[in-house]
Amino acid sequence: MAGLNAHHLTIMLLSLGVLLLTARIFAEIARKLAQPPVLGELLAGVLLGPTLLGTLAPAAHAFLFPQDPGLQAFFGGFRLLAVVLFLLVAGMEVDLSTVWRQGRSALSVSLFGIFVPGGIGFALASVIPNLLGREPGADPLTFRLFFAIAMAISALPVIAKTLLDLNLYRSDLGMVVIASAVFDDLTGWLSFALVLSLMNVTAGHDFGITFTVICTLGFTLFMLTAGRALFHRMLPWVQAHTTWPGGVLGLSLSLALIAAALTEWIGIHAIFGSFLMGIAIGDSSHLREQTRQTINQFVSFIFAPLFFASIGLQVNFVAHFDWQLTIIVLLVACAGKIVGCTFGARLGGMPPRESLAIGFAMNARGAMEIVLGLLALQNGLIGERMFVSLVVMAIVTSMMSGPMMRSILQLRRSPLLSDFLAAKGFVGKLTAKDRYQAIRELSEAAALSANLDPRVVETAVLEREALMPTGIGHGIAIPHARIEGLARPVVAFGMSEEGVDFDAPDGVPAELVFLVLTSYKDGGAQVSILADIARKFGRAELRQAAHNAGTYTEFLAVLRTFSPQN
Amino acid sequence: MAGLNAHHLTIMLLSLGVLLLTARIFAEIARKLAQPPVLGELLAGVLLGPTLLGTLAPAAHAFLFPQDPGLQAFFGGFRLLAVVLFLLVAGMEVDLSTVWRQGRSALSVSLFGIFVPGGIGFALASVIPNLLGREPGADPLTFRLFFAIAMAISALPVIAKTLLDLNLYRSDLGMVVIASAVFDDLTGWLSFALVLSLMNVTAGHDFGITFTVICTLGFTLFMLTAGRALFHRMLPWVQAHTTWPGGVLGLSLSLALIAAALTEWIGIHAIFGSFLMGIAIGDSSHLREQTRQTINQFVSFIFAPLFFASIGLQVNFVAHFDWQLTIIVLLVACAGKIVGCTFGARLGGMPPRESLAIGFAMNARGAMEIVLGLLALQNGLIGERMFVSLVVMAIVTSMMSGPMMRSILQLRRSPLLSDFLAAKGFVGKLTAKDRYQAIRELSEAAALSANLDPRVVETAVLEREALMPTGIGHGIAIPHARIEGLARPVVAFGMSEEGVDFDAPDGVPAELVFLVLTSYKDGGAQVSILADIARKFGRAELRQAAHNAGTYTEFLAVLRTFSPQN
Repeated sequence: MAGLNAHHLTIMLLSLGVLLLTARIFAEIARKLAQPPVLGELLAGVLLGPTLLGTLAPAAHAFLFPQDPGLQAFFGGFRLLAVVLFLLVAGMEVDLSTVWRQGRSALSVSLFGIFVPGGIGFALASVIPNLLGREPGADPLTFRLFFAIAMAISALPVIAKTLLDLNLYRSDLGMVVIASAVFDDLTGWLSFALVLSLMNVTAGHDFGITFTVICTLGFTLFMLTAGRALFHRMLPWVQAHTTWPGGVLGLSLSLALIAAALTEWIGIHAIFGSFLMGIAIGDSSHLREQTRQTINQFVSFIFAPLFFASIGLQVNFVAHFDWQLTIIVLLVACAGKIVGCTFGARLGGMPPRESLAIGFAMNARGAMEIVLGLLALQNGLIGERMFVSLVVMAIVTSMMSGPMMRSILQLRRSPLLSDFLAAKGFVGKLTAKDRYQAIRELSEAAALSANLDPRVVETAVLEREALMPTGIGHGIAIPHARIEGLARPVVAFGMSEEGVDFDAPDGVPAELVFLVLTSYKDGGAQVSILADIARKFGRAELRQAAHNAGTYTEFLAVLRTFSPQN
Repeated sequence: MAGLNAHHLTIMLLSLGVLLLTARIFAEIARKLAQPPVLGELLAGVLLGPTLLGTLAPAAHAFLFPQDPGLQAFFGGFRLLAVVLFLLVAGMEVDLSTVWRQGRSALSVSLFGIFVPGGIGFALASVIPNLLGREPGADPLTFRLFFAIAMAISALPVIAKTLLDLNLYRSDLGMVVIASAVFDDLTGWLSFALVLSLMNVTAGHDFGITFTVICTLGFTLFMLTAGRALFHRMLPWVQAHTTWPGGVLGLSLSLALIAAALTEWIGIHAIFGSFLMGIAIGDSSHLREQTRQTINQFVSFIFAPLFFASIGLQVNFVAHFDWQLTIIVLLVACAGKIVGCTFGARLGGMPPRESLAIGFAMNARGAMEIVLGLLALQNGLIGERMFVSLVVMAIVTSMMSGPMMRSILQLRRSPLLSDFLAAKGFVGKLTAKDRYQAIRELSEAAALSANLDPRVVETAVLEREALMPTGIGHGIAIPHARIEGLARPVVAFGMSEEGVDFDAPDGVPAELVFLVLTSYKDGGAQVSILADIARKFGRAELRQAAHNAGTYTEFLAVLRTFSPQN
C-alpha cells in the first residue's frame, strides 16, 4: 500500500498488537492492585519503550519501533485519532443537567478548585520557571499560564470511575464532585485551547489570537446549546430510519472527527472539538445505553490503552526523572487542589468530612493531565523532565483518590458472592437427592475451603435450616449459618440436575445451591452475600449460563460477564 | 506529532470524518433500495475520489486528499488495519461445526463451486490473457491462478447477511450454503496466499515458496485445531479474572493483529492471519454474544465503511471502466458459479428449486472479491481496468443474490408492525376513557391514513371486538378488523395515560392500543402483525420506552433500537 512497504506493514501490525496486549495485561495487573488502569497502560509503554527495552535490548526495540518516517507518520496519526476518540468518550460522560442541579456547592468547589492551585501554579512559574523546567525558547507568560492550568485541571473520566467504584456516583456528594469536575474540565481545556493559540501552533494559517478566541467561544457556545439541541432532534430520526446501531455509531464518530478537525483548524487542539461533540451527543436522552457502551468499550479498551502505552514509548522515564521537580509539582498540585476544593465545599455548605473527601476526589488528574502534558511537550513548551513529573503527579493523585475517600468517609464495599467463593468451595454437580445430603456435600467443601470441621459446619447449617427453609424460589437455595471465629465468609456452591427440594415459596426444587458461612460478628456480610446471590440469580439468563458452567473458572466467568455492574 | 504537521493532522481528521459520514449515508441509501451496504460505501469513495470530485472540483479533491507522503503512509496503514479487522469479523462468523454437520451436500456444492468457475477462469486466462487485462509485467501462470481464484471465491459475510435477511440462516438450505461458503473462502484465501507468495511480495526476507507453503499450511492447521482449543480454554479464565468486557476485547484484537503480522511475515497477506484468528475466536462457545456484537458493530459500521470508501478513492472508476471486459468477467463469474453450485447441490441430494437458489446464494462475491482485487492491483498483477471490472462484478453478483433467491424460493418477508404504521396513524396520547372511544379515535386515524370512511372502520372493529375482547395483557390491546378491498394493511397507535379496559386476561387496562386493519385476502398479514406486536411489546423495557415516545419518529426509533433483530 502506498507509503509503507510490506516489511513496514508487518511491523506496524506487530507493534500495534504487542502494544495493545502488553497495555491490557498491565492495566489488569494495576486493577488487581486497586490502581487506575491508565497506570498499567503507561507502564506497558515504559517497558517497551526507550526506558527499558530500548536500554536493555536496543536491537529488539529498534525492530519493533523503527525510526521510519512512514511508520512515524502512521503512529502520529493513529495516536491523534485515539486521543480524539478518548476525549469523545470523556465528553459523553458529562451530564450538563447535573451541573445546573448542584448549582451553588459545585460552583464554589470548582472555582476554588481552579483558582487556588492555578494561582499557586502561576505564582511559582513566575518565580522559579527554570526550576519547573521551562524550555529555554518558551514564552514566559505562556509557560505560566500552562503551569497554572496543569495544576488546576481535573480528570472527569477518572473521577467518575472512582465514584462509581465507591458507589457514590448518584449520591449528593458524587453529584457535586461530578458537576465541579465538568466545570473544571470545560474551563481548563478552554483555557488551554487559548494557550495553544497563543503559541501559534496552528493549522497552516495565521488568523491571529482574536480570531481563535472568538471562534473557540463561539464554537463552545454553539455546541452546548444549538449543536446539542440539533443532535437531540436528529437522533430519533436517525434511529428510526437507519440501520441500528450503525446509523448512530457512524454519525457520532464522523461528527466527532469533523468537529476535531474544525477545532484543530481554529487553532486550538483537535481533542477540544471531539470533547464538545461528546457532550452534545451524550446529553441526548434519545441515546441508547447500548450505543454508549459500544463506543465506550471499544475506545476504553482498544484506543485508550494504545494511546497511553504509546506515551510511555515516546519518553525515557528513567533518564528524565527528576526527584526535586516531581516533589514540587506533586506538592503544589495536591496542596492547591485539596485545600482549594475542601474550602470551596465548606463554603458551599457541605459538612467537613464530605468536604475533605471532595478535595481528594477532585485531586485526581488522571489521563487528562497526561494528554495536556504531551501537547505541551510536543509544542516545545516544556521539556521531558517536566513531562515525566506531570505524568508521575497525574498517576499519584489518581492512586490516592479512591483509598483516601474510602478512609475519610469510612466506606466499606458490600461483600459479593464472587469475593468468597473459592475454587475449593466449587462442588459442581451434586449427587444429593435431598436437602440433607446437599447440605452435607456443600458443608464438606466449605469446611475444606476454610479449614473447619465438616461436622460443625453441617450441624450449624442444619440447625438454621430447621428454623426456616432456605429455598428462595426460581430453583435457588441458600442454606447458611454463622460459625464462631470464622475469619472471613466462606461460600460453597453445587448444582443438582434433578433439583433438591428446599421448600421454596414457588415450590420449584433447587438446582443451584449456595452454602454461605459467616462469623457472628460480621452481620452485614451475610445479608450482603445473600442479597447479591438473589439479585444476580434472579435473571433467568444467568441461571441458564450457570448450569452450563463445568468448572470453577467458567462459573466465575459467568458471574462476571452476566452482571457487568460488578 | 512526529511525521505529520498540524495542517496534515487537520486534513487527516477531516477526510476521515467526511469519508465515514458519506460512506454511512450512501450505505443507508443502498439499504433503503434493498442493495448491499458495501455498494453505497464504495460509491461514497467514487464520489469523493478521482472519479467525480477529482474531475469536477480538482482543488477540493486535492485539499481533502492531498498527495502528502506522510498522509499516504497514515492512510495506507489505516486501510490495512481496517481490512484486517474486517476479516477478523468475517472469520468470527464462520461456524466450523456447521461445515462438518452438512458434510456431503456442502462438500459437493463447494467443490463444484470452486472448480467449475475456477476452471473456466483458468482456461480463459490462458487463452485471452490480454483481453482480461493482464499487466505486461505479470507472470502468466500467476495471473491464470489469480483469475481462477477471483472467479471461484465466495463472500461469506455477504452470503450470511443475505440468508439472515431472508430468514434462511438456520434452515437446511442456509446451513449447506454457509458450510460451502466457509469451505470456499478457506480454500480461496489459502490459494491466494500461495499466489501472493509465488509473487515474492514478502516482508523483507526471501525464504522461498516452500517455506511459505509449509508455514501457511502449518499455521492454518494450528489455528483450526490447537489454536482454537487454546483460545477456548483461555477464554473462561480471561472472563473470570479480567475487566469485563475489556479483557476479551483487548485479547481478541491484539491476537488478531499479531496473527496478521505473522502471516504477512510468512509471505501471505495479513488478512489471512486475522481471518483464521477470527475463526478460532468465534468458534468458542464461551464467547458472549455481547462481545461478538461490540466487535462486529464497531468494525462493520466504522472500519469497514472507511475501508470500502477508501477503495473508491484510489481508482478512477469511469476512466478505467471497460464494457467488454466487465461483461466477460461478469458472465464467466456468474455462469461458472451458478452452474457449478447448482449442479453440486443436485449431486449432493438437494431438490431442483433449492439447488438453483443455492447457486445464486453462492454467486455473491461482495467485499471479498474487492479485497482480493485490491491486493492484486497493488501488487501489479492486474491493472485498473480489470480491478474496476472485478468490483462491478462483485457488486452485481451481490445485488442479484437476495432478489433471485426470494423469487426462486417464492419467499415473502413476514409483515412487521413498523411496515404499516404511518405517521398519520400515530395518534400519540388518547383522550378516550373507554374502549369504544379509543376505537373511535384510532379508527379515525387509520381511516385518514388509508383514505377510508372512518365509520366503516369503526363499525368493523367494534363488530370484531364484540366477538372477543382484544386486550392481550401487559397493558396492550390490539383491536382489529378485516376491511373489504384494502390494498395493504393499516395500523394506528395510541397511548392512554390511565389505561383503557380491554378485558385482558390479566385484568390490566391497556395503555398501548394498536388498531390493525387488513384485507380479507391477506390472511397471513394480520396474524404476522399481531404476533410482531405481541412479541416486541412483551418486553417491559420496550413498553416503558414506548410510553416516553412523544412523536411518530421517536416511536419508530424505539421500535427499531429495542428490537435489534428486525
